[in-house]
Amino acid sequence: MATQHPSANHYDIVIVGAGPVGLMLSTCLARWGYKIKHIDNRAEPTATGRADGIQPRSLDLLRNMGLKSAIMTHKPARVYEVAFWDPPKNGGSGIARTGTWASCPSFIDARYPFTTLLHQGLIERVFIGDLEKNNTKIQRPWTIKGFTSDEKADPEYPVTVDLEHVDGEGKETVKAKYLFGGEGARSFIRDQLKIGIKHKDPIAYVWGVMDGVVKTDFPDIKMKCTIHSEHGSIMVIPREDNMVRLYIQIASSTDPDFNPRKTATAEEVQASAKRILQPYSIEWERLEWYSVYPIGQGISDKYTLDHRVFLGGDACHTHSPKAGQGMNTAFLDALNLAWKIHAVEAGFANRNILETYEPERKDVAETLLSFDNKYAKLFSQRPPAANEVAAASAGAVAGQEQNEFINTFKESCEFTSGYGVFYKANALNWSPTHPAQSHVLHPKSTRLIPGRLLVNADVTRVVDANVVHLEQEIPLNGSFRLFVFAGKPSVTAQALRDLASNMAKKNSFYMSYARPDLERVSHHERHNPHSHFFSVCSIFAAPRTEVEISRDLPPLLARYRDNVYADDRWDRQFPDAAAAAHAKMGLDQEKGGVVVVRPDGYVGVVVALEEGSTTVDALNQYFGSFCTKKLGGAQAQL
Amino acid sequence: MATQHPSANHYDIVIVGAGPVGLMLSTCLARWGYKIKHIDNRAEPTATGRADGIQPRSLDLLRNMGLKSAIMTHKPARVYEVAFWDPPKNGGSGIARTGTWASCPSFIDARYPFTTLLHQGLIERVFIGDLEKNNTKIQRPWTIKGFTSDEKADPEYPVTVDLEHVDGEGKETVKAKYLFGGEGARSFIRDQLKIGIKHKDPIAYVWGVMDGVVKTDFPDIKMKCTIHSEHGSIMVIPREDNMVRLYIQIASSTDPDFNPRKTATAEEVQASAKRILQPYSIEWERLEWYSVYPIGQGISDKYTLDHRVFLGGDACHTHSPKAGQGMNTAFLDALNLAWKIHAVEAGFANRNILETYEPERKDVAETLLSFDNKYAKLFSQRPPAANEVAAASAGAVAGQEQNEFINTFKESCEFTSGYGVFYKANALNWSPTHPAQSHVLHPKSTRLIPGRLLVNADVTRVVDANVVHLEQEIPLNGSFRLFVFAGKPSVTAQALRDLASNMAKKNSFYMSYARPDLERVSHHERHNPHSHFFSVCSIFAAPRTEVEISRDLPPLLARYRDNVYADDRWDRQFPDAAAAAHAKMGLDQEKGGVVVVRPDGYVGVVVALEEGSTTVDALNQYFGSFCTKKLGGAQAQL
Repeated sequence: MATQHPSANHYDIVIVGAGPVGLMLSTCLARWGYKIKHIDNRAEPTATGRADGIQPRSLDLLRNMGLKSAIMTHKPARVYEVAFWDPPKNGGSGIARTGTWASCPSFIDARYPFTTLLHQGLIERVFIGDLEKNNTKIQRPWTIKGFTSDEKADPEYPVTVDLEHVDGEGKETVKAKYLFGGEGARSFIRDQLKIGIKHKDPIAYVWGVMDGVVKTDFPDIKMKCTIHSEHGSIMVIPREDNMVRLYIQIASSTDPDFNPRKTATAEEVQASAKRILQPYSIEWERLEWYSVYPIGQGISDKYTLDHRVFLGGDACHTHSPKAGQGMNTAFLDALNLAWKIHAVEAGFANRNILETYEPERKDVAETLLSFDNKYAKLFSQRPPAANEVAAASAGAVAGQEQNEFINTFKESCEFTSGYGVFYKANALNWSPTHPAQSHVLHPKSTRLIPGRLLVNADVTRVVDANVVHLEQEIPLNGSFRLFVFAGKPSVTAQALRDLASNMAKKNSFYMSYARPDLERVSHHERHNPHSHFFSVCSIFAAPRTEVEISRDLPPLLARYRDNVYADDRWDRQFPDAAAAAHAKMGLDQEKGGVVVVRPDGYVGVVVALEEGSTTVDALNQYFGSFCTKKLGGAQAQL
Repeated sequence: MATQHPSANHYDIVIVGAGPVGLMLSTCLARWGYKIKHIDNRAEPTATGRADGIQPRSLDLLRNMGLKSAIMTHKPARVYEVAFWDPPKNGGSGIARTGTWASCPSFIDARYPFTTLLHQGLIERVFIGDLEKNNTKIQRPWTIKGFTSDEKADPEYPVTVDLEHVDGEGKETVKAKYLFGGEGARSFIRDQLKIGIKHKDPIAYVWGVMDGVVKTDFPDIKMKCTIHSEHGSIMVIPREDNMVRLYIQIASSTDPDFNPRKTATAEEVQASAKRILQPYSIEWERLEWYSVYPIGQGISDKYTLDHRVFLGGDACHTHSPKAGQGMNTAFLDALNLAWKIHAVEAGFANRNILETYEPERKDVAETLLSFDNKYAKLFSQRPPAANEVAAASAGAVAGQEQNEFINTFKESCEFTSGYGVFYKANALNWSPTHPAQSHVLHPKSTRLIPGRLLVNADVTRVVDANVVHLEQEIPLNGSFRLFVFAGKPSVTAQALRDLASNMAKKNSFYMSYARPDLERVSHHERHNPHSHFFSVCSIFAAPRTEVEISRDLPPLLARYRDNVYADDRWDRQFPDAAAAAHAKMGLDQEKGGVVVVRPDGYVGVVVALEEGSTTVDALNQYFGSFCTKKLGGAQAQL
């Protein structure tokens, strides 16, 4: 997308703030070729503290971006279970473990069933390194002084932004297509837009947070723990390099003498921790970081006013640190916006898909906040019994007794792992009320849900017999992902030929957005040989040795030879399925089906694979509901 | 081991050659604190070509050294299957695929069931980076001009080595405890020692090898392929960065006009490849590297004469490139020698354990060479039928019909994966003829075999609930590894107390080699809290939540709190076992057992876990057979 800009001070986007949300947005857009002005008012990336957890699903995302191994190089702590400690039931003094639960039990089927804990500055540096490869540098320490947005005055670059060095030593005014505020809870941009904050829970808290290296005989110091004692409460979070983080609630607005500026010294917090942990001992060998901050739950009323100036991350939602969701929610805010800006600016989608950013992401923030309350309430009632945890962890089994605890537990595991995030029906996420209507849409058997993540599945790549994670086979490249589950080659031969020949038509969703350099594309191009907006995978329900790409796939699909798979791997969830990936998706193992996945990994629509033009007609209708061109129509139906 | 040396030109070891064998030796010894003079006559690491495959087992080893992720960063090719192409059976022209087989089928239970293919220079640089962290630099381009070894004249530094810059510009004479020749097939040190080479197969070959980027419609270009056609034979090996390597046999000493200096140009080899691959087409877009070299199978008669000057790697064994074993055999030569030198120089083992280096490693080289022949013969007879490959891949099932093909296939898979390497009985690898004799030695049920690798198993770490690979939990730290399979806590409580109290005795194998700084060791020290020569893991046959370290383990074992595990993970090989790791080792799930693993990962001895002193008595006998001190004895038996 290396478009010509009218002058050096014209940008595609100005991004304010280089925390997780700003960096994710910047990294995506820089990779896709956009010109970015990215500023941050700190002279350096986060030096200490502030570490958030990376949830299982976020680790999938980082892997999809090729950034996971750089993060894992730092040997982060991995949280598999949460332990609960309370005063002993028999009424004695001190604390006793009342239970543990998996942070990501096996029913979720996560690739990485743990939370990754690492110093935020190290995570930021991984993104900054990637940005630099794409010639994008964070301008520091610079701040935003003002902005205007006027599409009438300049329909192409409606945003004007005034920037200034924090010392007031330099000033710049730039023009941009978009402005993004990822400046955290005290967002200047949000304030300027006069967007208010709504508090779901009116109670505000003052928290103390302390990172350090300790010597203790407390047995769960390397686990995530919630500890309640007669001396107060504490949350323990393990960190890299033998560090441990403690969260202590210092004040609550429900206290009779509440003062949001109440504070406590590190020594006071340590003394308090020593009392809470009795009969165990704890001593600090090194104190890395200590901070006290007031926080309340809040969601900004709007994420944008004009779909040119957007907010994301902590600028839109604040909540207690307990849920460990801040960085993950920030990543997904940015990802959601990034691909939509790209789809619009690259000429693929109508500008109004930007209107889906706020409802999709605000809804997730609302869920996060109500989850935070529900979770706390659940535990304040009574600790779960071991058999309830076991039943919940094992997942829903038909006929098994379910109680409210188990249901809430499962929901909360799905949510905290990131796999539970889902987007409601709209033009992108098909539902029966979608403009696209056809009997092939959303086949009855499918277990996939539009607006939810594609299900994980192992398959064997045909060309090199590598066993791979299907959901990772297309990188985060800004393209829609077409997974053609091709069933049995003998059954689907004609349907596949019809799929390809209808996709190859000039006004199909696929060829309407063909690459202008189609004839000159290298044969090594793996994911975008025909279009920058689509990447295709084909998966046969057959053993690898029985698949012959040039025989079993029409040329259009065979062109993606590195993306052809055999669904021949055993899966513990479907131990008897001959084609476990088909089974996991709920697609017919003979006849297959086509799954459209949005560039951010969420299912858009599932379509049955039928002979004739019906399948592509339905896809044309689906994409036609938000694409810039008229798709299919009279000609295609001739 | 930072000992004082008499002068700056005194070294622990001089290593000549910075290929895989020299680098592995150097990396191990540098990590363990030795002073090394490491030279190489090349100005730079390998620039192109020469890539060997890294077998599954070698990848385990690299992971155990913390070097795997640095290698995988380069996105090497992964070979899961080998395809065989021959003239069509129906007599037509061209070639047809006659079968494929897994390079590492599931019965091997490898963590990484594929061969990793990467430019040797990149692998070398990973080692060089690690060496630099330990203040060891390769001196380049320098060469060895002569050496003497005289233990009588200087019992501590018996070796004198003359070194010279390749331009003759600089000269150095150094004294060392050891000299290692890892200079490749044309070893100066081997020649000086007048050690001969024995040729198992008298036939010599001239090979052409070509790396490049191609455009082809040959469907298996990303697989490892053996192609025989009426126009000749070729081997295809995929490489990183879309490259492919072709091996072509140019001449054989069985040819009537054989000339070992016969050669062929790159164009001739390409023309030949085009004929062989018909009816498929192939064109070169880029030629990265091309070389022709004569090679024969050979093993040097000796690996050392005086156990001060040692040889390893290609200096000891040469063979055809087809088996892809060169780098792997080199790694294991070096590893085998490294820990033995360390054990001797650190004062743990008697000098005569160095005498086990040659027989252990020469035997592997002999097996490699005879395997090379057997493998070739097997295929020249007839290609395997699909059902034979399936039966062989599935592994031995009782009562299942076995034929010679299946047996040879399985042996060869084990061997080429690296999991089949084993060392015969000697002081280190217990057998019924070992000096250690006790009824607790080698309990009947155990599936572990001294001299073979420890079996892989998943377990849950108790302190943080992380699911881990047990065999990787102790890094390559030069220590013997004690795996205390502790069975059921209620059953083994007394046996564990007795184990610990007998280990704690002053003259036990364990405390005889206690750290001199025992009282000052940091509580963060994970693997060597008591001794530099031992690291201990304890594994209970119980769910993680039922294990309480301070209650279930005596203090000596509880000190290794980060190395305590619950054997509670399901394993597909033992789907019904409650404690799959115990089951995989063939240890009683109630009573457990103690497994001693050598520092290089090979099982030394298995001992039943009994109450009283019998278990430690047997361990004292085992270690006493090669340790420097008298262990156990009268006092302990009082």
